Amino acid sequence: MQPDELGAVEALAQMRAGRLSATRLVEACLERIALREAQVQAWVAIDADGALARARAIDAAADWRGLLPGIPVGVKDVIETAGLPTAYGSPIYAGHRPKADAACIALLRAEGGIVLGKTVTAEFATTTPGATRNPWNPAHTPGGSSSGSAAAVADRMVPLACGTQTSGSVLRPAAFCGVVGFKPTCGWLSRQGVKQVSESLDTLGTFGRSVADAALMAAAMARQPGLALADPVAPPSVTVVRTEAAHEGGPEAWAALEAVVQALSRAGVVVDASELPAPCGELPRIHPLIEHFEAARALAHEHTWHADRLSAKLRDRLDHGLAQPAAEYRQAHALAQACRESVARWFDGHDVLLTPSAPGEAPEGLATTGSATFNRRWSLLGLPCLTLPVMRGPRSLPVGVQLVGRWHDEARLLATAAFIERLVGWRA
Amino acid sequence: MQPDELGAVEALAQMRAGRLSATRLVEACLERIALREAQVQAWVAIDADGALARARAIDAAADWRGLLPGIPVGVKDVIETAGLPTAYGSPIYAGHRPKADAACIALLRAEGGIVLGKTVTAEFATTTPGATRNPWNPAHTPGGSSSGSAAAVADRMVPLACGTQTSGSVLRPAAFCGVVGFKPTCGWLSRQGVKQVSESLDTLGTFGRSVADAALMAAAMARQPGLALADPVAPPSVTVVRTEAAHEGGPEAWAALEAVVQALSRAGVVVDASELPAPCGELPRIHPLIEHFEAARALAHEHTWHADRLSAKLRDRLDHGLAQPAAEYRQAHALAQACRESVARWFDGHDVLLTPSAPGEAPEGLATTGSATFNRRWSLLGLPCLTLPVMRGPRSLPVGVQLVGRWHDEARLLATAAFIERLVGWRA
Repeated sequence: MQPDELGAVEALAQMRAGRLSATRLVEACLERIALREAQVQAWVAIDADGALARARAIDAAADWRGLLPGIPVGVKDVIETAGLPTAYGSPIYAGHRPKADAACIALLRAEGGIVLGKTVTAEFATTTPGATRNPWNPAHTPGGSSSGSAAAVADRMVPLACGTQTSGSVLRPAAFCGVVGFKPTCGWLSRQGVKQVSESLDTLGTFGRSVADAALMAAAMARQPGLALADPVAPPSVTVVRTEAAHEGGPEAWAALEAVVQALSRAGVVVDASELPAPCGELPRIHPLIEHFEAARALAHEHTWHADRLSAKLRDRLDHGLAQPAAEYRQAHALAQACRESVARWFDGHDVLLTPSAPGEAPEGLATTGSATFNRRWSLLGLPCLTLPVMRGPRSLPVGVQLVGRWHDEARLLATAAFIERLVGWRA
Repeated sequence: MQPDELGAVEALAQMRAGRLSATRLVEACLERIALREAQVQAWVAIDADGALARARAIDAAADWRGLLPGIPVGVKDVIETAGLPTAYGSPIYAGHRPKADAACIALLRAEGGIVLGKTVTAEFATTTPGATRNPWNPAHTPGGSSSGSAAAVADRMVPLACGTQTSGSVLRPAAFCGVVGFKPTCGWLSRQGVKQVSESLDTLGTFGRSVADAALMAAAMARQPGLALADPVAPPSVTVVRTEAAHEGGPEAWAALEAVVQALSRAGVVVDASELPAPCGELPRIHPLIEHFEAARALAHEHTWHADRLSAKLRDRLDHGLAQPAAEYRQAHALAQACRESVARWFDGHDVLLTPSAPGEAPEGLATTGSATFNRRWSLLGLPCLTLPVMRGPRSLPVGVQLVGRWHDEARLLATAAFIERLVGWRA
């Protein structure tokens, strides 16, 4: 296996055993990028010299302490990095260099992680796409807004990357690119130094080619080493949830879900089916009420002084958000809170939920990043979610499923995901 | 009345009536600062030229639209400002100039507000004090961490200022300096561009010399013009809450509270007494578990690379936060959430709570910023709170009361506070 084919956990094992150097791993990633970047366009900045210097220092010290010693990572360009440009996917910030790392980046560097570069994001992590293409077929979207992170990991340019999600910006590109995407509980990872779209919804997440890799990255960014273990254990219960978005899922989305159900049943796991409690039917309606109201405020600096350099789509959305009645916004929050409480009680009878991650394969074309219809309600509920790639669909593009865990119960979600991955996981 | 003695609402009325210019108001503030700053030390940066230029432009255009046209404001130095330094109260960031305004600052500038300068903050809005002194007696603390904002408003250097609160950093300095301090519901104001201490607790707030002024500033920072009205109406019910911290309040804290109760009774308002539901007894214990765990992550960049330029106290706290078990942190979150839900139900029988804002007058000395014992539980519950100055205590320093509202019900809290202010308000 070539170094660029290794996952992070595998590469760490080889480095700790003296069979691989950090320098060789970084070189292998740079070689893969040189080969493929013209087609995939996952990166907005590469720090080859800095990454190689850091790798050589780790090799020289043979210091394999920490969660990520010598592991190169990609960082979505809405997350600030010291010594590397951060433009948030907008021409307004071309050439901007923040003074400090975002908290999550400082934490992963402290664990030995090496920032290889910055990955393409949709404009301010909203919907106007960047240049990235789906690595499985360049005529198709990679999803977004964490487009570059998902594509770079899928294309083996880097074993790990991080992203952000407000609607479906981690779960959806992970599904479209065929990698694991993991969004922990909202608020669980510090957003210091992460450009905000929505105070109530924005959540950091990770990408890897295995559950263990995505968990390792999150453990480093959270400084919670215990999370990295996530041993695959038999899950006490898995519940299939068909939400009102069910009719928006194509046959391949349901085929992937059915494949997981069959595999679990064969493994002796009881799979229930249920529906979310009644008030949750309102979640898809109120998610944009909260997102747009808050985005118009979070992006006030850009909207007030640089409106001419926003995309027309984003400008219209921010105009709309400023015109929304405050009472509507407050009612949306009250309803969202009532849904969170009713789901928390309802979850007493369920450990992990199973539902589609996206309506199907990545759509053709690069003008949009696809639909977040299967992701928004979980983002608004603030629950931890994970995309697990399961198969390839009729157009030979990846299809995954989404697993949803209880609030602050990342460990159970990851352990269940790792269990299912062993049964049916499909790996990029 | 001299211009610097005017509140923001009063100054706006005079400007709109053609009896005061924005330039004269800014000049009056600068004159007051020139007279008093050597004693009070409320500011880390003053933008006299920029503020005067902006004021002249507003006068020339006679453009009085917006919520704050021509009104000078002070900005706590943990809040980022374009064109003015932002050092977060730390030598690590001496001379740092952010590229953009924080969202709340862009919003208030869009409403015509004029940033007069940056105000002193404790180190990263935690506990190591800056140079500010209490304007009523320079031997006493002004409270913290929003020390400069509270002192500048109390000393009539500026009619409005903004701050942040994680434990009691808005409510306490407001009480010690004798001004209104208003902290809305956690999450209600965008924290984009505000240096983070705790993802779960940090909340923006405002200072003014009247309830209407503090509400106006919040309305501008939230872009919710309706909030600025806050007409004083008879409150349906006020409930006195004596928490377990009751024994920490000195006689003057209870005298101020009793003065409000008497005035309300005379005005025909029924005042109940109650206690928070049982699980809330845990709030003071779990607040620091969450704050310290999160601060150690939010300040990871500074802790990892610049530990030698942190105060020993903050460094120790961050070391401690990194060593805390993740399970303890998650349990604290689960308990806090249970308390929020039980308080939301219990609040059905109460409109606004009345409780001390601080244990008493500002303590003597500048080594600490005083106790947040009456503020922490409300910060953790995320509820809107307001300090209303009521009287001067035995040492001739201000004493206030704290009013607490329902989640996302800023309007009722402000209207009730304005009602009580008319009855017993004491104004700096």
